[in-house]
Amino acid sequence: MVLTAHPGCTAAVMHGADRPVELQHFPAPELAPGEVLLETLFSEVCGTDVHLSHGRLAGVPYPIIPGHVSVGRVLAMRGVPRDVDGRPVRVGSIVTFLDVVGTCNACWFCLVAKTPNRCPSRRVYGVTCSAREGLYGGWSQLITLQAGVAILEVPPTLAPERVIAGGCALPTAIHAIDTARIQLGERVLVQGAGPVGLSAATLALLSGAGAVYVVERHEVRLAMAREFGVDEAIRLDETGSRGHVERVLSLTAGRGVDVTIEATGVPAAVKDGIRMTRDGGRYVVVGHYTDHGEVGINPHTEINRKHLEVRGVWGVDFSHFHRMLRILDRYGARVAGGRGWEHMVSRTYGLDEVNQALSDVETGRIVKGLIRPNPVRPSP
Amino acid sequence: MVLTAHPGCTAAVMHGADRPVELQHFPAPELAPGEVLLETLFSEVCGTDVHLSHGRLAGVPYPIIPGHVSVGRVLAMRGVPRDVDGRPVRVGSIVTFLDVVGTCNACWFCLVAKTPNRCPSRRVYGVTCSAREGLYGGWSQLITLQAGVAILEVPPTLAPERVIAGGCALPTAIHAIDTARIQLGERVLVQGAGPVGLSAATLALLSGAGAVYVVERHEVRLAMAREFGVDEAIRLDETGSRGHVERVLSLTAGRGVDVTIEATGVPAAVKDGIRMTRDGGRYVVVGHYTDHGEVGINPHTEINRKHLEVRGVWGVDFSHFHRMLRILDRYGARVAGGRGWEHMVSRTYGLDEVNQALSDVETGRIVKGLIRPNPVRPSP
Amino acid sequence: MVLTAHPGCTAAVMHGADRPVELQHFPAPELAPGEVLLETLFSEVCGTDVHLSHGRLAGVPYPIIPGHVSVGRVLAMRGVPRDVDGRPVRVGSIVTFLDVVGTCNACWFCLVAKTPNRCPSRRVYGVTCSAREGLYGGWSQLITLQAGVAILEVPPTLAPERVIAGGCALPTAIHAIDTARIQLGERVLVQGAGPVGLSAATLALLSGAGAVYVVERHEVRLAMAREFGVDEAIRLDETGSRGHVERVLSLTAGRGVDVTIEATGVPAAVKDGIRMTRDGGRYVVVGHYTDHGEVGINPHTEINRKHLEVRGVWGVDFSHFHRMLRILDRYGARVAGGRGWEHMVSRTYGLDEVNQALSDVETGRIVKGLIRPNPVRPSP
Amino acid sequence: MVLTAHPGCTAAVMHGADRPVELQHFPAPELAPGEVLLETLFSEVCGTDVHLSHGRLAGVPYPIIPGHVSVGRVLAMRGVPRDVDGRPVRVGSIVTFLDVVGTCNACWFCLVAKTPNRCPSRRVYGVTCSAREGLYGGWSQLITLQAGVAILEVPPTLAPERVIAGGCALPTAIHAIDTARIQLGERVLVQGAGPVGLSAATLALLSGAGAVYVVERHEVRLAMAREFGVDEAIRLDETGSRGHVERVLSLTAGRGVDVTIEATGVPAAVKDGIRMTRDGGRYVVVGHYTDHGEVGINPHTEINRKHLEVRGVWGVDFSHFHRMLRILDRYGARVAGGRGWEHMVSRTYGLDEVNQALSDVETGRIVKGLIRPNPVRPSP
Repeated sequence: MVLTAHPGCTAAVMHGADRPVELQHFPAPELAPGEVLLETLFSEVCGTDVHLSHGRLAGVPYPIIPGHVSVGRVLAMRGVPRDVDGRPVRVGSIVTFLDVVGTCNACWFCLVAKTPNRCPSRRVYGVTCSAREGLYGGWSQLITLQAGVAILEVPPTLAPERVIAGGCALPTAIHAIDTARIQLGERVLVQGAGPVGLSAATLALLSGAGAVYVVERHEVRLAMAREFGVDEAIRLDETGSRGHVERVLSLTAGRGVDVTIEATGVPAAVKDGIRMTRDGGRYVVVGHYTDHGEVGINPHTEINRKHLEVRGVWGVDFSHFHRMLRILDRYGARVAGGRGWEHMVSRTYGLDEVNQALSDVETGRIVKGLIRPNPVRPSP
Repeated sequence: MVLTAHPGCTAAVMHGADRPVELQHFPAPELAPGEVLLETLFSEVCGTDVHLSHGRLAGVPYPIIPGHVSVGRVLAMRGVPRDVDGRPVRVGSIVTFLDVVGTCNACWFCLVAKTPNRCPSRRVYGVTCSAREGLYGGWSQLITLQAGVAILEVPPTLAPERVIAGGCALPTAIHAIDTARIQLGERVLVQGAGPVGLSAATLALLSGAGAVYVVERHEVRLAMAREFGVDEAIRLDETGSRGHVERVLSLTAGRGVDVTIEATGVPAAVKDGIRMTRDGGRYVVVGHYTDHGEVGINPHTEINRKHLEVRGVWGVDFSHFHRMLRILDRYGARVAGGRGWEHMVSRTYGLDEVNQALSDVETGRIVKGLIRPNPVRPSP
Repeated sequence: MVLTAHPGCTAAVMHGADRPVELQHFPAPELAPGEVLLETLFSEVCGTDVHLSHGRLAGVPYPIIPGHVSVGRVLAMRGVPRDVDGRPVRVGSIVTFLDVVGTCNACWFCLVAKTPNRCPSRRVYGVTCSAREGLYGGWSQLITLQAGVAILEVPPTLAPERVIAGGCALPTAIHAIDTARIQLGERVLVQGAGPVGLSAATLALLSGAGAVYVVERHEVRLAMAREFGVDEAIRLDETGSRGHVERVLSLTAGRGVDVTIEATGVPAAVKDGIRMTRDGGRYVVVGHYTDHGEVGINPHTEINRKHLEVRGVWGVDFSHFHRMLRILDRYGARVAGGRGWEHMVSRTYGLDEVNQALSDVETGRIVKGLIRPNPVRPSP
Repeated sequence: MVLTAHPGCTAAVMHGADRPVELQHFPAPELAPGEVLLETLFSEVCGTDVHLSHGRLAGVPYPIIPGHVSVGRVLAMRGVPRDVDGRPVRVGSIVTFLDVVGTCNACWFCLVAKTPNRCPSRRVYGVTCSAREGLYGGWSQLITLQAGVAILEVPPTLAPERVIAGGCALPTAIHAIDTARIQLGERVLVQGAGPVGLSAATLALLSGAGAVYVVERHEVRLAMAREFGVDEAIRLDETGSRGHVERVLSLTAGRGVDVTIEATGVPAAVKDGIRMTRDGGRYVVVGHYTDHGEVGINPHTEINRKHLEVRGVWGVDFSHFHRMLRILDRYGARVAGGRGWEHMVSRTYGLDEVNQALSDVETGRIVKGLIRPNPVRPSP
C-alpha cells in the first residue's frame, strides 16, 4: 500500500556515538500487510536516549530514529489490525503502542525462562531498529507500526499529553512496584527522582504506602518530588557524613524502610539503599539500564544476615503498558496535588531542538522532556 | 497488686444463647505481674457479637463480657509491660491491643503449620474468655490486659474514635487485602458492605485499584459505600434475573473483575462471586465466620477451567493490627470524601443499650455501632 | 511442497458423540512453509478421548482425528523449522511437540491476564482441529505440524516409548506439582490414580515429599500406584463410613496432609479431599476437564476457618512440556522400582483397535493405553 | 530440683579469641520449672565453631560451651515439659532440640517484620549463652534445656548418629532449598561442599532437580560430593582462566543454571555464582555467617538486565528443624548411594580432642566432625 499523495516527513536521526542528531526527510512509507501509519503527536526524550547519544548501549544499529514510547493519530493502515481487545484499529483514532517488535514466542527465553525481554529476536522502537529499515522511532513526524506491534487506543477521557507524560517511565515503574509487592502501610524509599523514580514514588503513594521518601541529588527534582506529594524529599549527601542515610534511619526508628526502589543508575546507590532498608526487606533494582561499573557489596552484613531480597527489573511487558492507561485514566488528574501527571513534563521540544533536549536531560536541568515532531494544529 | 481505692466497675454480661445481655458490677481486679488495667474509652459491636448472642460459635465459655477490639486509657499496671517497640507502657496513655492471649508459640500449629490462629491455647477477648475469670471484654468500664497481650500506644495524632472505627473489621480487611495482592489498576469487587466489606473496599481504593465495585443487599450500606467512594455500589439482585452479575460483567468487558473479596457470610455469595471474577483471577473468602451451610460449586467451570485461585482468610495477626494504626494515622482523615474513617460509625451506645445495639446490627439498620461503657468526661 | 511419491496414510476419525471411530485413508499432505510432516511412532488414548467420544466437550469440530500428544519421526519439511533451542529440525530425527497451535500472543488473555490457555485462537491437536483441515491428530500414520507448533527433539538417550508413557498426563502433572509447591518432607495426597494422578504421585515422590498417599476406586490402579512406590494406596470407601478419610487422618496425627492434588474429575472428591487436607494447606484441582456437576462446599468450615488455598490448574504451557523430557531423561528409568515410566502403559493398540482402547480406558480396565498407528518395522 | 546423687560433668569451655578450648568440671545443675536435663550423645563441630574460636562473631559472652545442635537422652526434668506434638517428654527418651531460646514473640522483629532470627532477646546454645549461666552447649556431658526450648523426640527408626549427621547444616540447607523453590527438572548449582553445601546439594537431588553441580576447592569435599551423587563435582579454578565457570556454562547451553545456592562464605563466590546463573534465575546466599568483606557487583549486568533474584537466608526456624527429622527418617538411609546421611561424618572426637576437631575443620581436612562427650556405653 503506497500513500502516493503523502509528501513524506521529517525525522531526527542519530548517527552514532557523540555525533549531533540531524534532521532528515523520508518519503511516506509503503505499508506491508498489518501495518499502521501514525502521525506522531508526542514522543519523549529519556535517559536511554542520552545513553544512545554516547554509544553506551550494545547492539544499536545506527543510524536510528530515537523515541521509543509515543502517541499518535492513525493516518492509514493495511488490512485490519486489531487492538488487544480485538477491536479493529480505526483511522483517526489516538493510539499508543508497546515499543517492542519481533519477540518470537518460540525460543527458550520466551517459552522456558519466561523472560521475553531477553529474546534475541526482540527489537525496540527508537533503540534497536535502524532508520535504514523504516520509520521506527518517535522523533519523526510519521511512525510505521509493524505487524504484531501491540496497539492500545487512548480513551477519549485521556489527553495525549497525559499519556506521554507517563511515557516509558510509568510502565517501567509499574513493573518495579509490582515486583516490590508493597503492603498497605509499609514505608517505601525511592532512590532517584528522574521520571522512573518520580513515577515509582507516585505509584507507591497510590498503593497505600505508609510513607514515601525520596533521596535525590538535583534540587529541581527534589522540588518536583515534593510537588508530587512524597512525605520527605531528602538531598543526597555525598560527603562522608551520610546525612541522607541518617535521616531515613531516624524516620524509621533506626530500622530502615520496608521496601526500597533504586532508580538512579549509580552503582554506589545500591550499597546506600541496602543500608536504608530494614532486615527482611525488599530491594528492587530498576535504574541500571547501562553499565556504570561495580559497587562493593558485603554478602554477610548486606544480604545474608539481613535476610534481604534483591530483585532486578528490566523493561516491561504489555500488561504493564495496558495498566498504565487505566492508572492514568483514573489517577492521572489527581496526582501532584491536582496538577496531573503532565506536571512531570518540564519542557516540550520541536524536532529541531532535540540536541538541546538531550543536553537538558543529561545535565539534570529538566525532569522530563517531550518531543512534538509536528506543528500544533488548531483543534477542529 | 490491689487497687484498694477503686470502686469497681459495671460490665455487660452475655449469659448464653438467646438470653438478654445484663449489666453486672465487678470489683476492681487484682493485677498479676505484667498485667495492665484500662479504663475503657470505646469498644464495638460487630457481627460476631450477634452470632455470640445466638450461641452460634462453638466453645464459648458463657458467661462472657463481649467486645473484642477496644481502646482504653491506662489506669494502672504491675511490673513494666512494654509495647512492641520496647517502650514501657505509661499510666494515662491511650492504647489499643490485639484481642488475643495465650497463643503458645510452642505447638505444631504455631511452629510448623504457621497458623497461630488455630493454636488450641489461643483465647480471644470478648469471645472465648469467661467473665468468671476476669474483665476480659470491652463491654465493661474496665479491662484487664493479661501479661503477653500485645499493646500498641495510640499516637496523639489519632483520635480514639477513629481507631475504634477501624475496630476489628479493619485489620481483618488488611489481612484480606494482603492476601488478594491487588496490583495497581486491577479491578476489585467486594461482596457485602458491612464493616469488613466497607473496610476492604476502602483499602482497595487506597491500594490503587483501577475500579472498586460493591454488591450489597441493604440500602443503608449501599449509600455508605458510595460515600466511601466506590466506583459503583450495586444492589444485590435476588431474583433469577441476576442483574448484579450482569452489571459487573458489563463493567468489565464481560470478563469479570481481577480480584473478588467475599465479606457477606452467605454461602450463595461464593458461587455468585466466582461468576463475577475473571479467568485466572483471585477469590478471597473473608466473610464466613460462622457456619451457614453449603453452596454448590462446579469444580470444572468454576475452578479448574477458570484457573481460579481461592484463598481463605481467618482473623489477623499482630502485623495487621500494627499496620492498622499506621494506615489510620495516614489515611484515616481523607477517606469517605474527607469525612474520615469514623464516618462508618452509625451510632454509639451506652452499656445499658447493648441489647439494642445487637438488634440494630442484626437487622442491618446500622453499619457499625460503638459501645462507650463510661460516661463522657469533660476534657481536662 | 507436495510429497508426490508418498502413498498417503490411514487415520482413525471420530465423527461425533457416541459414534464408532472409523478408519479413513488420506492422501499425503501438501506442506505449507514452516510445516513438518511426521511419521507417527506413538500416540495415546486418554480420558479426554473418552469425553470426546461422548461429545462432552464444547466446541469440537467433528470429524476429528484424536490423539493430542504423540511422538514421531520427521519425514519431510518445508523451509527450516527450528526447535526451541534454535537448532534446525532434521529429517529422520525423533521429535515430540506441544499439541497447541494458534495461541495469538496478541489478545487480552495472552498478554494481560496471562492465561494463554484461554486464548480464543488456541486450537489443540486431536481435540479442536478438524479432520477436514489436515492430519492434526496422533491416531494417524502421518501428522502435519503446522508452522509455529513448538517442537522438541527427543534425545537419543530417551526411548520413544518412555516419552509417550509420559504423554499428556505428565506435563499436566508437572503443572499441578509446580502449583502445589511441595516443600521437602511435606505429606502429599493424590486423589485418583489414572495417568495424571499416578504421574502426580510419582512426581511428588521425586520432589522429596515426606509421604505420598493415593486414594482410588479401581484395584488395578491401586496396584499400579503401589508399584510406583507410594507410601500407601488406599481404596476409596464409598460407604458412609468413610474409611479412606479416617485412614488419611490417622496417618497424619488427625490433621490431614499438607498438600492434596485432585485428579479424579468427580465433584464429590473435592469435598472429600478438603477434609483430608490440613489447616493452612493447599488443594490443587487438576482432574476436572469436563463438567460433571456440582459439589456442596461449606465456605466457613472448608475454606475460611481452615485458611485453605485452592488452585485450579488447566492444561500446560511449553515450559512444562520442556521439563517433561528432562525429567524423563533423568528419572524415567528409575521410577516404579526400576521398571521405568513405561510401566504405566497397560496395553498398546493398533489403529484398528481404537474403539477397544476407548472402552478399556472408560471402564478402568487399563491405566494407560498407547496407539501405534504404523506397523512395527525392524530396526535398521 | 537438685540432682543430689549426680556427680556432675565435664564440659569443653572456650574462653575467647584464639585461646585453646579447655576442659572444666561442672556440678550437676539445679533444674528450674520446665527444664530438662540431657545426657549428651552427640554434638558437632562446625564452621561457626571455628569462627567462635577466632572471636569473629559479635556479642559472644565468653566463656562459652560450644556445640549448638546436639542429641541427648533425657536424664531428668522438672514439671511436665511437652514436645511440639503435645506429648510429655519422658525420661530415657532420645531427643534433639532447636538451639534457640528466648525469642520473645513480642517485639517488632518477631511480630511485625517476622524475622524472629533478628529478635534481640534470642540466644543460641553453644554461641551466645555464657558458660557462667549454665550447661548451654553440646560440648558437655550434660545439657540443660531451658523452659521454652523446642524439643523433638527422635523416632526409634532413626539412629542418633544420623540425626547429628544432619546437625545444624541440614535444617539450614532445608531453609535454603525452600527459599530456592526448585522446580522439577531445573538445574541447580551449589557453591561449596562443606556440610551446608553438601546438604543443599543432596536436598536438591531429593527435590527432583534436573541436574546438580557442585563447585568446591578441596579435593576431599569434591570426592564426598561425588559419593553423594551430584552430577558433576567441579574443582574451583582460582586462576584467571575460570575453568569452572566455563564448565558450568557448557553444561547449560551457555545459559547458566536455573538456581544457585552459595554455601562458601567467600565474597568472591557471589560474583562467580551470579555469572553461572541464567537470566531470570534465583541466587540464594546461605554461606555468609561471618564478615569476610566485600565483593564488587555490577548492578547493570549482574542484577538488572539479568532479571536476577537474590535472597539471603539466615539460620532456621523450628519448621525446618521439624522437617529435618522427617526427611532423615525417610531419605536418610538411601542417600550417598545407600551409605546414609552419616557418611558425611569424617571423624568423631572425644571432649579431649576438640582443639584438634577445630583445626581439622578449619583446614578442610574433614567434611564434618562429631563430638561425643560421654564414653560409649555398651547397649543394654
